[in-house]
Amino acid sequence: MKKKTTTQAPSCDWRSPDRSRKSPEHEKPKARIHRHRPDYGWSRARTERYKAPDGTWDEVLRRTLVGGQHGERTRFHLRYFEVAPGGHTTLETHRHEHVVVVIRGRGRCRIGKKNHAVGHLDTIYIPPEAEHQLSNPYDEPFGFFCIVDAKRDRPRPVR
Amino acid sequence: MKKKTTTQAPSCDWRSPDRSRKSPEHEKPKARIHRHRPDYGWSRARTERYKAPDGTWDEVLRRTLVGGQHGERTRFHLRYFEVAPGGHTTLETHRHEHVVVVIRGRGRCRIGKKNHAVGHLDTIYIPPEAEHQLSNPYDEPFGFFCIVDAKRDRPRPVR
Repeated sequence: MKKKTTTQAPSCDWRSPDRSRKSPEHEKPKARIHRHRPDYGWSRARTERYKAPDGTWDEVLRRTLVGGQHGERTRFHLRYFEVAPGGHTTLETHRHEHVVVVIRGRGRCRIGKKNHAVGHLDTIYIPPEAEHQLSNPYDEPFGFFCIVDAKRDRPRPVR
Repeated sequence: MKKKTTTQAPSCDWRSPDRSRKSPEHEKPKARIHRHRPDYGWSRARTERYKAPDGTWDEVLRRTLVGGQHGERTRFHLRYFEVAPGGHTTLETHRHEHVVVVIRGRGRCRIGKKNHAVGHLDTIYIPPEAEHQLSNPYDEPFGFFCIVDAKRDRPRPVR
């Protein structure tokens, strides 16, 4: 099971090299505060594509708050994703677990064959190999944190 | 460095056995949604003491959303802490890193000798061995998520 694990974090991520593991041991990461802005952006957390366009997702952006870019060595990454009205993430599956916390608007979370309406601060645990997708059928942006293991396997889209 | 690491998660935790590691491999954790309540409680996340009373903290509660209790095997734990007006966590230090996300009210975060005012959705990274403390000099509850590695060392109070 272990051989497919990668530190390249390809997941619900199109780019997230785990640079922390390359840092010299003596290089100490510094404290930092990502200040939140009214538009759900944060200081020192740029807006990126959810992942490379492949026709499986639409209208999703990501902002990485903790992902090894600043030298931290946490065994988890914290990312913010936002799905615009009408958008959705890839319907996919993978071995690694997801923890999702809704912080903006509301949306839908499909797990297996079930669709769940989710709203403010609802916290979702998605187990290994469960097909899942987050979508926004509403008129306002749907934003959520997604916390994952730093080392994780590559997601597989469900056709 | 590794020998002090424990799975007992004693940290900013008075109780959090990592039961996930004891689960048989074939026992699959199930999807779940912790529904958020208006009082910053969640379904299936009981309110606990921050940790055993030892005179180093005051007026803090905790709610664990992801911590191995339901069979999940994430390499991180997600906890909610709330500091009542006038309260504070222990001034402490440890090797493991903290990621704090403010979701209720506002408060103060001391890191090293510096005090930072923090508010809604500000996200704080506290590096290894940094003295730190969260406190609430305001009139409303101060609540935040704290994400940590599942395997982590025991905090040491700063005298």
